[in-house]
Amino acid sequence: MSMRVRRLEARDKPAWLGLFKGYIEFYKATVSEDVIETTWQRLMAGAADFHIAFVAVDAEDTPIGLAHVLFHRSTWSPTQYCYLEDLFVDPARRQKGAGRALIEAVYTEADARGCTRTYWTTQEFNYRARTLYDQMATKSVFVQYRR
Amino acid sequence: MSMRVRRLEARDKPAWLGLFKGYIEFYKATVSEDVIETTWQRLMAGAADFHIAFVAVDAEDTPIGLAHVLFHRSTWSPTQYCYLEDLFVDPARRQKGAGRALIEAVYTEADARGCTRTYWTTQEFNYRARTLYDQMATKSVFVQYRR
Amino acid sequence: MSMRVRRLEARDKPAWLGLFKGYIEFYKATVSEDVIETTWQRLMAGAADFHIAFVAVDAEDTPIGLAHVLFHRSTWSPTQYCYLEDLFVDPARRQKGAGRALIEAVYTEADARGCTRTYWTTQEFNYRARTLYDQMATKSVFVQYRR
Amino acid sequence: MSMRVRRLEARDKPAWLGLFKGYIEFYKATVSEDVIETTWQRLMAGAADFHIAFVAVDAEDTPIGLAHVLFHRSTWSPTQYCYLEDLFVDPARRQKGAGRALIEAVYTEADARGCTRTYWTTQEFNYRARTLYDQMATKSVFVQYRR
Repeated sequence: MSMRVRRLEARDKPAWLGLFKGYIEFYKATVSEDVIETTWQRLMAGAADFHIAFVAVDAEDTPIGLAHVLFHRSTWSPTQYCYLEDLFVDPARRQKGAGRALIEAVYTEADARGCTRTYWTTQEFNYRARTLYDQMATKSVFVQYRR
Repeated sequence: MSMRVRRLEARDKPAWLGLFKGYIEFYKATVSEDVIETTWQRLMAGAADFHIAFVAVDAEDTPIGLAHVLFHRSTWSPTQYCYLEDLFVDPARRQKGAGRALIEAVYTEADARGCTRTYWTTQEFNYRARTLYDQMATKSVFVQYRR
Repeated sequence: MSMRVRRLEARDKPAWLGLFKGYIEFYKATVSEDVIETTWQRLMAGAADFHIAFVAVDAEDTPIGLAHVLFHRSTWSPTQYCYLEDLFVDPARRQKGAGRALIEAVYTEADARGCTRTYWTTQEFNYRARTLYDQMATKSVFVQYRR
Repeated sequence: MSMRVRRLEARDKPAWLGLFKGYIEFYKATVSEDVIETTWQRLMAGAADFHIAFVAVDAEDTPIGLAHVLFHRSTWSPTQYCYLEDLFVDPARRQKGAGRALIEAVYTEADARGCTRTYWTTQEFNYRARTLYDQMATKSVFVQYRR
């Protein structure tokens, strides 16, 4: 059985908050409540310049994983590119295909929009995630620089 | 003397074409004339969802290097992120600071817009570029996956 | 309970053959029967210029994992360096500490010989192994070139 | 004209000391005078378990670069492996082919001894060296762990 994935909805706010905070914590990062609320409001507003959100849900339709995806222009293609900025599955609900189903939903959406590239980044040492990614995508030879 | 950098203008089209094609060739990639023309038109149109372009110019005000920069939303910050998608300097005009000046211009613009992150990617084995990048930014531990 | 590790002995030949061949197969490599026999003979001969071998054994004293270790001179130290060339645990017997116990036995031997460095290499994408190695050693910034 | 490379000789001691210390300094490492003297004595003694040394020499036969090479046993091959532990060229004498000539001399020696592998490591960010290595060898997918 494949995991069910759907778009994030307003009633998902408590579950989404738990997932997004778990994701931020995974990166040992800090994001203020204000910024998290702003992100939630922007996801709900649905403007073209902001991310869309998918959730993988369990049998009770409760989100157990999330994906935030930005479609943006590129100088290399007339189409948009699909950037998967955030992907997270509740650690207690793993190994049931939620991550894979979320990526597949992202691919489906990217195809529907005619995107010529879908991409994301992950920490070199995130072995658990990379085990999945190696099955679904190709590790590029690109490294990332940040100021 | 620092290299002069300014925004790309309509009169730069021939020089820009030469630089952008040289850049594409560097990556052993192929981009059709149609797509290159679309990118030019979009750069000139100046829509908020498209890249802005900088050029490093010589004493005759002729572009010898380019930078294409996309400002986009993030789920992690109320501000925009600054993504330097393309950076290229004419191989015949290198070692005079054009690359560094272009990155500095990008930083200045990102600061003016309040961006909390400026980033780009490069091939792991692009040693010449990385020698410069190591001086101006931090190599992250992120690797990139692509479909 | 920690896994028991001891030196390889002549009576271990059948088990060692199974493990070493499993290890070679893991790397999708081919090593001829002749070469494997030569390696066995050299391990048994115990010359100073060849590897020593450890095995992790189960309750019946049957080897379920192996480690081959070469002690060699360095130009950087008056002591020998300890090079762990091979490490393998039977896939059917994993998650019981055999890999960790083998590395600990290598460390103990290296300490007894006064080695100032113990090192090994692994494939960048061998995530299962690296999860253990990240706990027991430090990933260096060195990459390997081969002719 | 190819750079001349020959084996290290006793009369090279002053030049060798300068090169080896420059090499150690390049790595921001510290090796005591005692250890350096021990390494020199061992190179001169010529025991089978220690490295052999090559030097690239200028027109006056003065060493301007060095290579220290260890031949050691492997469990994977009846032959010895050739490990290039140290390679260094005087920064003031670069870009004249000394590094390339030293590696070629190592390859020639490895071939004469029937080695089935010649290898070395370098820091991921040693771009100048890697530019040469990429032309003469293959970057493996192996990363190095150290205690």
